[in-house]
Amino acid sequence: MGKIFFTPGPTQVYDSVPHYINDAINKDICSISHRGREFQQIFQDAVSSLKKFLNVPDEFHVFFLGSATEAMERIIENCVAKCSYHFVNGSFSKRFFTIAQELGKVPQKLEADLGRGFDFGRTEIPDEAEIICFTQNETSTGTAVDVNDLNLIKENYPDKIIAVDIVSSVPYVNIDYSLIDCTFFSVQKGFGLPAGLGVLILNNKLIEKSRLLAGKGYTVGSYHNFINLLKSAEKNQTPETPNVLGIYLLGKICNELHQKGIDRIRRETDKKAEILYKFFDAHNLYKPFVNDKSVRSKTIIAINASNPQELIKKLSENGFVVGSGYGDYKNSQIRIANFPMHKISDVEEMLDHAE
Amino acid sequence: MGKIFFTPGPTQVYDSVPHYINDAINKDICSISHRGREFQQIFQDAVSSLKKFLNVPDEFHVFFLGSATEAMERIIENCVAKCSYHFVNGSFSKRFFTIAQELGKVPQKLEADLGRGFDFGRTEIPDEAEIICFTQNETSTGTAVDVNDLNLIKENYPDKIIAVDIVSSVPYVNIDYSLIDCTFFSVQKGFGLPAGLGVLILNNKLIEKSRLLAGKGYTVGSYHNFINLLKSAEKNQTPETPNVLGIYLLGKICNELHQKGIDRIRRETDKKAEILYKFFDAHNLYKPFVNDKSVRSKTIIAINASNPQELIKKLSENGFVVGSGYGDYKNSQIRIANFPMHKISDVEEMLDHAE
Repeated sequence: MGKIFFTPGPTQVYDSVPHYINDAINKDICSISHRGREFQQIFQDAVSSLKKFLNVPDEFHVFFLGSATEAMERIIENCVAKCSYHFVNGSFSKRFFTIAQELGKVPQKLEADLGRGFDFGRTEIPDEAEIICFTQNETSTGTAVDVNDLNLIKENYPDKIIAVDIVSSVPYVNIDYSLIDCTFFSVQKGFGLPAGLGVLILNNKLIEKSRLLAGKGYTVGSYHNFINLLKSAEKNQTPETPNVLGIYLLGKICNELHQKGIDRIRRETDKKAEILYKFFDAHNLYKPFVNDKSVRSKTIIAINASNPQELIKKLSENGFVVGSGYGDYKNSQIRIANFPMHKISDVEEMLDHAE
Repeated sequence: MGKIFFTPGPTQVYDSVPHYINDAINKDICSISHRGREFQQIFQDAVSSLKKFLNVPDEFHVFFLGSATEAMERIIENCVAKCSYHFVNGSFSKRFFTIAQELGKVPQKLEADLGRGFDFGRTEIPDEAEIICFTQNETSTGTAVDVNDLNLIKENYPDKIIAVDIVSSVPYVNIDYSLIDCTFFSVQKGFGLPAGLGVLILNNKLIEKSRLLAGKGYTVGSYHNFINLLKSAEKNQTPETPNVLGIYLLGKICNELHQKGIDRIRRETDKKAEILYKFFDAHNLYKPFVNDKSVRSKTIIAINASNPQELIKKLSENGFVVGSGYGDYKNSQIRIANFPMHKISDVEEMLDHAE
């Protein structure tokens, strides 16, 4: 009770979430038909609030899925006949690659060491690659791709589909939607909502590719193939009964964050990241995992610690929950999230207990 | 506000749901890690409460998905090389068949007219059928398969996988799990919960089939193939970040319903169904759509009405929300759900306004 979660996600929910949930219950949002006008309005509100807040152009579609992991699967399933290309420097970029393998494709990858970036200007992506997959912010290690690098990729490979995982950097990351074709995320990180909803934002290039593959006899999935998803989305509906409450809450939170303003959110995130990295750069025991400052994530801060469990325990006893290291780093790191619901004063107070 | 939803799903939530949600928020259930001990306990509680309540044998696995529609897709994807067999007498049984087609399989079907049952004793299912798919309760028309008929199928085809859609009949339907291999449903119907969670209950026959197909080079999906789902479930986890709140609520509701007792719930459902059918059988304007009493659903009651919108409006003005007819029957039927949260007194009061 009363703890503040600085975990990479699920994380602290926004203060207003309990209020929105109670409101939803009082308005029977959990009982209304997903084929009725009231739901269509909720769908439309969520999509338009999200697009306004994230500055997504009109021509992009928004699909609601079960998770960001499902988004990875559906992108590969709908857009890849044989070869996807992946920049892999952590567990989640690797997962995107693995999903392509599991779906019987022959993906290719460029690997970087954990905590390191890529030299995008010199990268040669093979002709057969149908889609280029980025994990813009590697949640497992707190390593970020500079969005300006997407520019280089677009210039060199203008015809390929570009898909960007922004799971743990949204809404902070400033995506120029003229340089990419698709982004996706889930709502339990920077949107501070209960888990169980994935969001896929995509343009017609992906829809056309799905149609092309389906026409050639490839299997592009069933109820959640892009053709079925689009047919429903055009009616402000989903093919199946969706997470109605989650969609409702996403609309409300996007509205609230839009009121606050994306510029202010980005400035505050930069400020908190600066405080966090400065503190740990100067610490004698705990040091940032990512050395190269140009690829340090502003939203997931990974810290090396010889005894992470001790630090996690100490912070928890003082009311702050931070994440453990991911996978192999479980016993040598902690991870601290820096999302819009995390206040500067809370960051400072938490750090007081990490001295 | 204050309306009672008799809709086929999403439907009325249980009275205790707002309380459980508030409890979950206070206990930070929406913030905890899905890889930690607290979530594992929630997962385990939900599975064991569900199994106890529905009398599911220990050897069955429980997987959490996004929806019942996803369950259909995953069953076909994991268990069918070429041919599934479907009993089709409505939109949802047809959807199961269509999903198999969309996944590139060559399904076969036996069709019955809407509102009619099947002669299972005389049905000849071809050798090449790898799985037999039932929609035990056709939500679109209120037509139910007698579970005793599953006996005939099991006797005649002991080696085939038998999958049963119990979306709109659970928990009322009394499934003998020794006669089937798999059931599935979503939580926004008889479990009276917010939508966004599908539940798949299956035995090792389906797991083995998935392994066999994967070994032969078939694509059985990625993060939600049965091998990955089982690997996670054995650790009381899910492959992706799931609908944690939904899983938590399902455990709570199963516990509550188990306290009440499944026998009592079934008796009350029978009683309410009797009241509903008796009323409409005797009505001069509105008549039950399903004539054959042996295939009338106890949980979804479809009623013919020459002007359904008028009846829907009249009931709504008096605080009762009923469903419209499905698909082609939108302008000629209404549908009334009879789930455990619907009280006998509310059924009676609603019917007073349908005179």
